[in-house]
Amino acid sequence: MTKIRDEVLEANAKYAEEFGARGKLPIVPARGIAILTCMDSRINTFALLGLAEGDAHVIRNAGGRASDDAIRSLIVSYKLLGTREWLVIHHTKCGQELFTDEVMRNLLASSLETARWDGKQWQDTGKGPGSVESDYIDWLTIRNLNDSVNNDVQRIRRHPLVPASIAIHGFIFDVETGRLSEVTKTRP
Amino acid sequence: MTKIRDEVLEANAKYAEEFGARGKLPIVPARGIAILTCMDSRINTFALLGLAEGDAHVIRNAGGRASDDAIRSLIVSYKLLGTREWLVIHHTKCGQELFTDEVMRNLLASSLETARWDGKQWQDTGKGPGSVESDYIDWLTIRNLNDSVNNDVQRIRRHPLVPASIAIHGFIFDVETGRLSEVTKTRP
Repeated sequence: MTKIRDEVLEANAKYAEEFGARGKLPIVPARGIAILTCMDSRINTFALLGLAEGDAHVIRNAGGRASDDAIRSLIVSYKLLGTREWLVIHHTKCGQELFTDEVMRNLLASSLETARWDGKQWQDTGKGPGSVESDYIDWLTIRNLNDSVNNDVQRIRRHPLVPASIAIHGFIFDVETGRLSEVTKTRP
Repeated sequence: MTKIRDEVLEANAKYAEEFGARGKLPIVPARGIAILTCMDSRINTFALLGLAEGDAHVIRNAGGRASDDAIRSLIVSYKLLGTREWLVIHHTKCGQELFTDEVMRNLLASSLETARWDGKQWQDTGKGPGSVESDYIDWLTIRNLNDSVNNDVQRIRRHPLVPASIAIHGFIFDVETGRLSEVTKTRP
């Protein structure tokens, strides 16, 4: 029993009371869209695109990167559930821009405690123990937002299980203005 | 230029006009929560938990499974951005319950076109060409929802980079009632 658990269950009870016709939505996304975006807490995917429940698949991870797992999800999305148009959305002020694999590996090797950002770099808490397991993980960090969007769109486009007929658009979401800007789009 | 692209950009322009104070939210999730859930279009993550922009990280993939990539994201979430409480949410009528690796591999080997569900099984369109690339992908299908939630919570709990101090709760979301039910929770 934690406070957060109790709060979300209470909020969910209210949501369920007003669920109404949403309970009859089919499994196939009505607008044939799948979105790949970042886990960032400032991104309200449906709201920022004017979508409602039932419209679109939403795939999210740290950075909104075209990881193997994101591609697994996109393939399920079109092959079984018929989406035809995919949006890759990265965003300004992304956490993935603030570190490198080397930084993350050093921080985790030193301690599993949350690091502190001092405005310029991450500060180790010095409260070990850590783990070298991080040496085996590619953190998919971002050096340049335009490049990360373009590269991810291209990685998806070139995947042998992705049909050429699917439209793939790349965007950057500005977390300070709420505005999307288009980086690229790849069409059949 | 596609219709969907034009529609989401138009909807986004309206969203940005009313963005207001949300443009000043910090990168650290205010309520220290990270959520792992399915890409399913019927899941409006913030709404169903009573969360607002800025409250929580949201990680989504096909099934809401604890894939290596989801775990990468959860580790970034706590190590750099301080989340302390994680919710794993699978849901009823999930697409991942409707196939096996073998079914998906056969469908994709035959054709990259979208398959048809006839109420009992997936029907191949017969419109090749396909690809055997699918043989190299674990589709992370679900046989039993309670098991998938419990197993995913346990996989995260036992990961060497996940501190014992993080609370991990497992839920199933009912897409017909909008209601969450608690499957398990793992506490320190």
